[in-house]
Amino acid sequence: MEKIRIILAGPRGKMGMEALNLIYQTEHFELQAAIDRKNGGKLISSIEGLPPIDAPIYEDAEQCFKEIDADVLLDLTTPEVGRIHTELALKYNIRPVVGTTGFNEQELKELAKEAEEKGIGVIIAPNFAIGAVLMMKFAQMAAKYFPDVEIIEQHHDQKLDAPSGTAIKTAELISRVRQEKQQGHPNEKETLQGARGAIFNGMRIHSVRLPGLVAHQEVLFGGNGQILTIRHDSLHRSSFMSGVKLAIEKVMNLNVLVYGLENIIE
Amino acid sequence: MEKIRIILAGPRGKMGMEALNLIYQTEHFELQAAIDRKNGGKLISSIEGLPPIDAPIYEDAEQCFKEIDADVLLDLTTPEVGRIHTELALKYNIRPVVGTTGFNEQELKELAKEAEEKGIGVIIAPNFAIGAVLMMKFAQMAAKYFPDVEIIEQHHDQKLDAPSGTAIKTAELISRVRQEKQQGHPNEKETLQGARGAIFNGMRIHSVRLPGLVAHQEVLFGGNGQILTIRHDSLHRSSFMSGVKLAIEKVMNLNVLVYGLENIIE
Amino acid sequence: MEKIRIILAGPRGKMGMEALNLIYQTEHFELQAAIDRKNGGKLISSIEGLPPIDAPIYEDAEQCFKEIDADVLLDLTTPEVGRIHTELALKYNIRPVVGTTGFNEQELKELAKEAEEKGIGVIIAPNFAIGAVLMMKFAQMAAKYFPDVEIIEQHHDQKLDAPSGTAIKTAELISRVRQEKQQGHPNEKETLQGARGAIFNGMRIHSVRLPGLVAHQEVLFGGNGQILTIRHDSLHRSSFMSGVKLAIEKVMNLNVLVYGLENIIE
Amino acid sequence: MEKIRIILAGPRGKMGMEALNLIYQTEHFELQAAIDRKNGGKLISSIEGLPPIDAPIYEDAEQCFKEIDADVLLDLTTPEVGRIHTELALKYNIRPVVGTTGFNEQELKELAKEAEEKGIGVIIAPNFAIGAVLMMKFAQMAAKYFPDVEIIEQHHDQKLDAPSGTAIKTAELISRVRQEKQQGHPNEKETLQGARGAIFNGMRIHSVRLPGLVAHQEVLFGGNGQILTIRHDSLHRSSFMSGVKLAIEKVMNLNVLVYGLENIIE
Repeated sequence: MEKIRIILAGPRGKMGMEALNLIYQTEHFELQAAIDRKNGGKLISSIEGLPPIDAPIYEDAEQCFKEIDADVLLDLTTPEVGRIHTELALKYNIRPVVGTTGFNEQELKELAKEAEEKGIGVIIAPNFAIGAVLMMKFAQMAAKYFPDVEIIEQHHDQKLDAPSGTAIKTAELISRVRQEKQQGHPNEKETLQGARGAIFNGMRIHSVRLPGLVAHQEVLFGGNGQILTIRHDSLHRSSFMSGVKLAIEKVMNLNVLVYGLENIIE
Repeated sequence: MEKIRIILAGPRGKMGMEALNLIYQTEHFELQAAIDRKNGGKLISSIEGLPPIDAPIYEDAEQCFKEIDADVLLDLTTPEVGRIHTELALKYNIRPVVGTTGFNEQELKELAKEAEEKGIGVIIAPNFAIGAVLMMKFAQMAAKYFPDVEIIEQHHDQKLDAPSGTAIKTAELISRVRQEKQQGHPNEKETLQGARGAIFNGMRIHSVRLPGLVAHQEVLFGGNGQILTIRHDSLHRSSFMSGVKLAIEKVMNLNVLVYGLENIIE
Repeated sequence: MEKIRIILAGPRGKMGMEALNLIYQTEHFELQAAIDRKNGGKLISSIEGLPPIDAPIYEDAEQCFKEIDADVLLDLTTPEVGRIHTELALKYNIRPVVGTTGFNEQELKELAKEAEEKGIGVIIAPNFAIGAVLMMKFAQMAAKYFPDVEIIEQHHDQKLDAPSGTAIKTAELISRVRQEKQQGHPNEKETLQGARGAIFNGMRIHSVRLPGLVAHQEVLFGGNGQILTIRHDSLHRSSFMSGVKLAIEKVMNLNVLVYGLENIIE
Repeated sequence: MEKIRIILAGPRGKMGMEALNLIYQTEHFELQAAIDRKNGGKLISSIEGLPPIDAPIYEDAEQCFKEIDADVLLDLTTPEVGRIHTELALKYNIRPVVGTTGFNEQELKELAKEAEEKGIGVIIAPNFAIGAVLMMKFAQMAAKYFPDVEIIEQHHDQKLDAPSGTAIKTAELISRVRQEKQQGHPNEKETLQGARGAIFNGMRIHSVRLPGLVAHQEVLFGGNGQILTIRHDSLHRSSFMSGVKLAIEKVMNLNVLVYGLENIIE
């Protein structure tokens, strides 16, 4: 397999460090350079805690794209910075693989147009955990046959918002194919308020928060005499790396922008 | 083992029919008579669908207790009727085993006093499913070490009330031993109302309702780096019979009233 | 929706009785006749325990197909009888929907050829539980991305064979797409024989047997930092009816033979 | 609450570092000194990566016990070293809390005798995860009422032995109270060898190994119409710290040796 030459933005973040290890351990991946807020001019190998890759660090992204010959930009920075990097990379014909939710619809449209004109691939993925993406995809498929759905998501008790973004995304995807339905008994009654959870298009979502939990979700489908359950447990941030790897490989053969990992999974 | 002679009240109900089969299949159990709203004077064996036991049916409970020599009354009728039967049985020195929630505290006290004076056992159990009783007992024990608790109960979508009685009972039992605690992040926020479930003393209860479900509950305890889960699945009403059997055996060696199966389980 | 006119073979079996209720409760289904080993000449409504449908019962299948104008034969008899009925129904241009495993490959080929010549649909489904079929389909899809798979199937303790047919079918379907892999640590060692379960193409299958269980299966996929689980619980034979309903509706628009419900599910 | 003065042996190990954090964050715990193979004479606070506690490090355990006034020795070293430390600590009237499996029965007896003579507490615990200990305790209690048991343990695929030590320990504890029973159908047959798992006194144990898993176990109890499940998920080594904390507090009020955390849990 031909080597894929990569520039990584955000090498010292938690995800960035996982990505460095991924690149280091994948034979057909090669790190050409990194973009970082500091350490410009140093080598990755010279930073304590990072793997022994002799790739230079740039603080100026455009300079990096100009000087370095690369196939893919893997951006694991912030939404704000990721957006700027994506546009710059495209300008220099480097395929962006971006794990951010920072683009609005208008920006996505423009990026898509640019990608198409240039004929090079772009992958923007709010969620790189293939397992989570498959869970959502399967949930959407199952909902056609089982319109009665409840989602139970479970996270550590330091999480501020409920339901989780993944739970809402799952419910949205299901809503596109599920026949509208008010679930439960028409006369059901909460003797303690909130027991039946949040309502999203007639579906119910329940958010569990406990110390010890990491990030889990199960989608339950009920039908006559049977229950179908799809569950994803994300126990460590390394779970994102299988999706990052897949995206880097797939973006090489794309000539358009793809939003969401579910669209490169068959 | 000496035979235990039983009078069954409510032989044609769903639970009553299960109990008839239990008695029929248990070597050291012997049905002496049944109390029913109809079929007075007939034999159990003559009623279609009931097992071939030649025990007489009485419509008048007091007459039954007077004429029949029995050790135990197993009452599986309604709360109202069960209360009357219990008092009558005690009067005739027959030990009542009653699956009802129909007694208030004052009535329980009086029954307890009467049982003690007579020196014979009485068992009143709102829930005969040993598995459910163990789940509640274990949950109470675990809560001492894990004050962060969430309860997820799951039932078929014909159930009207949420949370279930078992969920509330579990939360009450836990409350007696758990150090008071408001769970979750102090600043957590529901972006969809109800997501975090019902609140009971700071614990959260979630009620799932789907066709295909029967009666299920799990109690989750979270601590640093670990989760302890206790789950009970009740898939068929025969689940109550192991508790009925245990209660009939235990009541023979009691000389007081016991309320709740958890108190005869070690 | 236009009514679909149905002949049911095997109306007094457990599945047959569920099917009678399904037809009775589905507005666009209409029972025209039933084929049974006995009760020829009577009406379904005259048999105790069956729903009040005034459809005639035939003991001779061919006579039934000759005299009755119907769209679909739903056959829930034995493999042996089902095969004969299927061929007869095709002869009379009635679309067979058959829940049997009784056909060998040669017979399936001949039936397929006949269906194609006649231009009418045939559906043969070893498993009508849509949830189970979806579980297998999703498992096959997930295995492309997660080659590490273990299957845990759980059944009541009266089941004789282990692993279950569904577990083996699932493993076979996965094998078609999964990159060959010996799972677990190369030096792993069983200190108690059998602990690591059965091996199927490097995957592991575990069979749990307990009283109280009905029919359950979960397929676990493990990857870096994440677990994806697909689970199906079949708690009552009514679980098959959603698949029967779907098959009856789909067969009307088919002009070929379809084997396996997974091939009519999108 | 009076402060408990602690000496920690093994401060730089994975568990030792968790313990340092525990002591640092617990108001009524105070680290007096640490015993380590290196860094003698330095302060804990001077070692990179350790919390800012100004406690001295000793390389010679006996010297440490002689010079430092402490209530408890927390030993998180190896079995070999832990044994020596335990005996030394007892000699200097310091209560040992030891997380090791390195003692044989004879040694335990002698330690117990010495503890009793001195009238000071000793706690030796092979497993400090309270959740796991509760799981085993509950499993033992449940087995009295549900003699049909299967254990499913799940670990990462780098684990060499199957079944896990915890699974075997659980089965042993159950065996002490469970009525002997050969589970499953007497004529059950494995069509793929190993499907029904390992046998331990008639119970079945299944070992799942997948990347992504950490350390999980569930114990399933089956009875008529019901299933009781007790599950423990250990997702991070911090799970041991709740047990360490409890043991340190409990050992202060003991005047005998206790083996196993289950014996200080009510």
